[in-house]
Amino acid sequence: MSTAAQYAVFTGCIVDTPVMGQLRVRINGVLGIDRSSGRIIGVAEKAELLPAELVSAWTGQSVDSKAIETIQLTADQFLMPGLIDTHTHAPQFSFLGIGHDLPLMDWLNKYTFKHESEFKDANLARKFYKDVIKRVVRNGVTFAAYYGTIHFDSNCVLADIIREIGQRAYVGKVCMDANSPAYYSESTEASLRDTEEFVKKVLGSQAEEANKQQSRLVTPIITPRFAPSCTHECMAGLGALAEKYQLPIQSHLCENPSEIEYAKSCFPDSPSYAHIYHQRGLLNSRTIMAHCVHMSDAEIALMRETKASVSHCPNSNLSLSSGIADIRRFIAEGIPVGLGTDVGGGYTPSILDAMRMAAVSNRALIAFRRDSGVQSAPGSKDTPLEAAEALYLATQGGARVMTMDEHLGSLDANKLFDALVVDMSTPNSPVPSIEATPAVRDAACPIEAWKMRIEQFVFLADDRNISRVYVGGKLIHTS
Amino acid sequence: MSTAAQYAVFTGCIVDTPVMGQLRVRINGVLGIDRSSGRIIGVAEKAELLPAELVSAWTGQSVDSKAIETIQLTADQFLMPGLIDTHTHAPQFSFLGIGHDLPLMDWLNKYTFKHESEFKDANLARKFYKDVIKRVVRNGVTFAAYYGTIHFDSNCVLADIIREIGQRAYVGKVCMDANSPAYYSESTEASLRDTEEFVKKVLGSQAEEANKQQSRLVTPIITPRFAPSCTHECMAGLGALAEKYQLPIQSHLCENPSEIEYAKSCFPDSPSYAHIYHQRGLLNSRTIMAHCVHMSDAEIALMRETKASVSHCPNSNLSLSSGIADIRRFIAEGIPVGLGTDVGGGYTPSILDAMRMAAVSNRALIAFRRDSGVQSAPGSKDTPLEAAEALYLATQGGARVMTMDEHLGSLDANKLFDALVVDMSTPNSPVPSIEATPAVRDAACPIEAWKMRIEQFVFLADDRNISRVYVGGKLIHTS
Ligand SMILES: [Zn+2]
Ligand SMILES: [Zn+2]
Repeated sequence: MSTAAQYAVFTGCIVDTPVMGQLRVRINGVLGIDRSSGRIIGVAEKAELLPAELVSAWTGQSVDSKAIETIQLTADQFLMPGLIDTHTHAPQFSFLGIGHDLPLMDWLNKYTFKHESEFKDANLARKFYKDVIKRVVRNGVTFAAYYGTIHFDSNCVLADIIREIGQRAYVGKVCMDANSPAYYSESTEASLRDTEEFVKKVLGSQAEEANKQQSRLVTPIITPRFAPSCTHECMAGLGALAEKYQLPIQSHLCENPSEIEYAKSCFPDSPSYAHIYHQRGLLNSRTIMAHCVHMSDAEIALMRETKASVSHCPNSNLSLSSGIADIRRFIAEGIPVGLGTDVGGGYTPSILDAMRMAAVSNRALIAFRRDSGVQSAPGSKDTPLEAAEALYLATQGGARVMTMDEHLGSLDANKLFDALVVDMSTPNSPVPSIEATPAVRDAACPIEAWKMRIEQFVFLADDRNISRVYVGGKLIHTS
Repeated sequence: MSTAAQYAVFTGCIVDTPVMGQLRVRINGVLGIDRSSGRIIGVAEKAELLPAELVSAWTGQSVDSKAIETIQLTADQFLMPGLIDTHTHAPQFSFLGIGHDLPLMDWLNKYTFKHESEFKDANLARKFYKDVIKRVVRNGVTFAAYYGTIHFDSNCVLADIIREIGQRAYVGKVCMDANSPAYYSESTEASLRDTEEFVKKVLGSQAEEANKQQSRLVTPIITPRFAPSCTHECMAGLGALAEKYQLPIQSHLCENPSEIEYAKSCFPDSPSYAHIYHQRGLLNSRTIMAHCVHMSDAEIALMRETKASVSHCPNSNLSLSSGIADIRRFIAEGIPVGLGTDVGGGYTPSILDAMRMAAVSNRALIAFRRDSGVQSAPGSKDTPLEAAEALYLATQGGARVMTMDEHLGSLDANKLFDALVVDMSTPNSPVPSIEATPAVRDAACPIEAWKMRIEQFVFLADDRNISRVYVGGKLIHTS
């Protein structure tokens, strides 16, 4: 940013979803940030005060107007929390959009393992990952949980690039010491050693001022690929590392029936797929399990008891014919749910797409149940997922899955300013103008009109409408 | 176009799907068009001849090179048939992307009927429809089947605007003389009279040279909204008009269970919903029935026997929790299938989206059947719909549904030149570069690489990649 002002005050419409199902629209909002902390210092509606008066009140200090940049949004713009992708694979952009008609295991062997193995070359990683992260950021993703590859050097490069670009991320060194192709696997010892080295490197490289747990950009995440690709020793060791460094954990769970059988056959002593992780210290309140399409009641109970989270990846689950996760049930059980793109199982890095796919796959599930006479789970309900609910899953819901909901996910005082300026009037974007949408023009009141515009944002917008992307108060992308 | 050349010769990669499941890629293709007829005069691979020699050979006349414009595509571009939307509602862009969480009947009353009724004002139509048609064309749709409203004047305006912009279209005056709100319905007499007047006006206004059945831009289509909104007399009269003028017919069929019950309750003497139309002369080889999600065996047999077609609208069917049509079964039975966006039941006018939704909804159906132990229909198969198959449905399949497959849908000599120049390297488009997609870069051969690029086109591209749109040889849009 060219400006040196310590504070910035945004005026305009502020949209967020602090609670599932609740769309909060502050039409004449004012929001202040402190660039040195990267946090929101205050939010108000219809403020009569001048920016300097507001900032002084919010900070409890007399702040001169010269220290404040004021940013006025247009009538077609709004400010919202950054989008959160709780599950994606950085190296799999190698074959973005390709090969989904193959069965899962063929797809893994033909594309995934082959292309991930190429990242033993860290120079390739440097060139390749830059394009990946820029593409993800352009889609409005301020915070993502990335799987890297098994390679120490390339994973360090990935973490460096993310930090350079300024995105917030969890980055995982993928662990694979069992049942993997010879050209893409590692010993148990190397897996654990490289994981710990990676953890220390990432935490160490941003030590000092930036390395406070919640405000640092890049955090290592413990990443057994999935149970079948790890030995008992590896997973137990990873569980110990997660405990030692109090790190988040990510893996895959119950994606499709044949994968579930495979996982159980690898660990015949575990009562369920979820228990395989649990018995090795990998299922707790910092765990993000991707997919969870085919879960037994016992597994859902275990997720609830351990306070583990679900990364719902509807594009991937549809594209690979996995099925549809019953996220209404998880939510009813109190299990946190966020959205994931799961590139390359999903064909796009857009979390806007993930919101749409979450909505339409939920409706496909409703239709199938209705037509086959199956009831929804107790405590759950079969009502179509609304735009505001999808938005919650992509923001506050995602923040909760990443155990960062106290610091991210909505636009409230003291939270980190990870946010987007959305422009609904970008020329030639997929969003029609208000004039071209009489339903909006004729709305009963401005709040009603904004609600419709948010629906259009969720179902129609793309990266052209993501006008500005902020992470920790810093502008990292302008479209 | 600024050029006055009668002929144009394109050189570069030519992609189409003349047969379901067959992707034809002519990497070093040459394609010539005659602008006066709007048709393709010849296509060749790896031509050694000069453009003038080719055109002379194709036309059987000695053609001077001054009469030929040569258009060389870049290595990242390809030429493909225009996309065909076999089902959409022009007035429903009024609430694009809004209200899908409502049940169908509430949605119809709150949005559809209310906003369609506003088109009694033809001035509104003139302003509004221009934006609609431009939006549809920008998405690469060269040929669409539109529902208008019940209003004669506004429908004429819609036809005029389409002709001015240069898109190919079927335009239907919607008929509603039963069970409709007082503010948006018509008498049987007015419905039939206005339909015939509209037919005569549209056919008459482009008479002379342009009004040859297959090369005219706008053709009227007989359009009973759906059985419940029409009386027996109205539908029988519409059947007679379709026969008298040999016109195409469009309506809705078996969208969701409660709509089916409603239709049957309106016509208790008909053995099925499909029979309601059939008994009134509305089901024949020129008929396009939208949705067909919940069809009985008898209805499928009736469709097959009458040679009627299905417009598959996956986005709409998912968005409104209708269910998923078993298009593999229709195809196995020989029933033509094309894709429809069904705006505003579907939230986007993009047929690229319809291709993706056709693929993912087919895979949801596969997963549900697998998980509930249901077999696919006899003669059908439960394999994931591939990119090339989705592309067929959006081009040659759509042309067949519109009974224009002899003249449109693939890039062959004598067909009308309705085509797109696709650019896979548009800056900041959703399609990554080849350098950023090692799977493509490392493909075994150029054909393999192009197949992957076409998958990326189907699953990732948007209007930014639709570089040029041609209809009948005329350039009507440049991005
Ligand atoms: Zn994954
Ligand atoms: Zn429709």
